[in-house]
Amino acid sequence: MQVVAVPGLPRIDSSSNLAQLIFEASIHWPDGTAGLTDGDIVVITSKVVSKAEGNVVASDNRDELIDSQSVRTLATKHHARGTTRIVQTHHGLVLAAAGIDASNVEAGTVVLLPQDPDASARRIRKELETLTGKQLAVVITDTMGRAWRNGLTDNAIGIAGLFALDDHTGKQDQFGRTLEMTVIAIADEIASAADLVKGKSFGIPVA
Amino acid sequence: MQVVAVPGLPRIDSSSNLAQLIFEASIHWPDGTAGLTDGDIVVITSKVVSKAEGNVVASDNRDELIDSQSVRTLATKHHARGTTRIVQTHHGLVLAAAGIDASNVEAGTVVLLPQDPDASARRIRKELETLTGKQLAVVITDTMGRAWRNGLTDNAIGIAGLFALDDHTGKQDQFGRTLEMTVIAIADEIASAADLVKGKSFGIPVA
Repeated sequence: MQVVAVPGLPRIDSSSNLAQLIFEASIHWPDGTAGLTDGDIVVITSKVVSKAEGNVVASDNRDELIDSQSVRTLATKHHARGTTRIVQTHHGLVLAAAGIDASNVEAGTVVLLPQDPDASARRIRKELETLTGKQLAVVITDTMGRAWRNGLTDNAIGIAGLFALDDHTGKQDQFGRTLEMTVIAIADEIASAADLVKGKSFGIPVA
Repeated sequence: MQVVAVPGLPRIDSSSNLAQLIFEASIHWPDGTAGLTDGDIVVITSKVVSKAEGNVVASDNRDELIDSQSVRTLATKHHARGTTRIVQTHHGLVLAAAGIDASNVEAGTVVLLPQDPDASARRIRKELETLTGKQLAVVITDTMGRAWRNGLTDNAIGIAGLFALDDHTGKQDQFGRTLEMTVIAIADEIASAADLVKGKSFGIPVA
C-alpha cells in the first residue's frame, strides 16, 4: 500500500474546485508512477470540502452554532479553557462541538461539517473520475477524540466508491472457528492512514 | 509512505522467535527496495506476541478470566450471543472482554493480552535492531470497538522507538491561531494503517 500527500494545493475557499485542483496536483508514488489510477482512494479533510462548499459562518455565538448542528447533547464538561460538549449531529456523528472547527480558518469565522458528506464524496468522485478517466474512491475525513483513549484520529464521515465496513462475521479463522465480531472499519482506517502523510497545521488536506 | 504485509510467517507459538522470523521474512516495498531499513516501523498484532510469550490459557471460565485481567467493569450488555463486558485492564486499556481473544487459537484456549506490551515492543525492537543493524520502531496492536461508531479499528497497545502522540498544541495554524486541542494519536493511526494490509482471518499478523 502506498500513501502520499497531494502537494501544492492552494488555500481552499468557495471559489475552489477541489476535484480540478486534485487532478492538477503533482502526485508521485514511491513506485515511480504518477497521478491517479484505477483503484486509488482520494482522502480529503472535511474542512476543505466545507470551505469549497461555502459552509463557513461567523463564530459569534459558538453555543448556538453547536445547537444548530446537533440533535442531542451526550456530555458536557467544564474546564479551564471553557466548555466542551459531545453532541450527536444531524448526520448521526457523535463528536465534540458538532465538528465545528476554528483552526485554519479566517479570524472570526468557523467551518461547519459538510451538510451531506456522502453526497460531497459522490460529487467529488464523479468529477475526479470524469477528469481522470479512472475508477476512484473518495473518503471525506474529520478528526475526532475517542472515549477512553488520549489523542485524536481521523475517521471517515463521508465515502463514495468503497465500503465503510469490511464484515468478516460468518467467515472462518485458521482453526475453523467462525468469526462473530470481526467487522473492520476500513474507511476509518484509511482516514487514519492518510492522516499520517497529511499535515494538520501545514495545509496538506488531501492524500 | 509505504505499508506492506510481512509475508510467509508460520503459525506462532511459544517456541517462535518473532524478531528472527520477521528478520528472515521477504519484505518487498513498492519502491523496489527490500528488507528493513532505518526509520521503518514494524507493526505486530498483539495476539502473536502473546502466543510467542506463551500467554495462552484454557478457556473454561471466560467470566473469571475477564475478571482476572480487569481492574474494573465499565459496562455490561446482555444480548443474543451472550454477555459483552467493557472493562479496564491492568494496563489501563478500556476494551471488550479485557482483550481476551478466542479467534485464531487452538480450540479450548484463548489468548490474553501481553502482560507488558511496551516491554514486549522494546524487547522485539532491540532484537530486530541487533539482527538488522538498523534503527527501527515497533508497535504492538489490538483490535478495538469504539464508542458511537460501528466497526473495529486497530490501536497501539505497546510501542518502542516512537511517540504515541504528536502534540501540536501551542503551534500556530496557517492563520496564526494557536492550536489548543490538536494531539494526534499517531501510534494508533499507524496501527490502523498497518491493519489495512494485514489479514485478520488469513494469518498475516505483521506489517
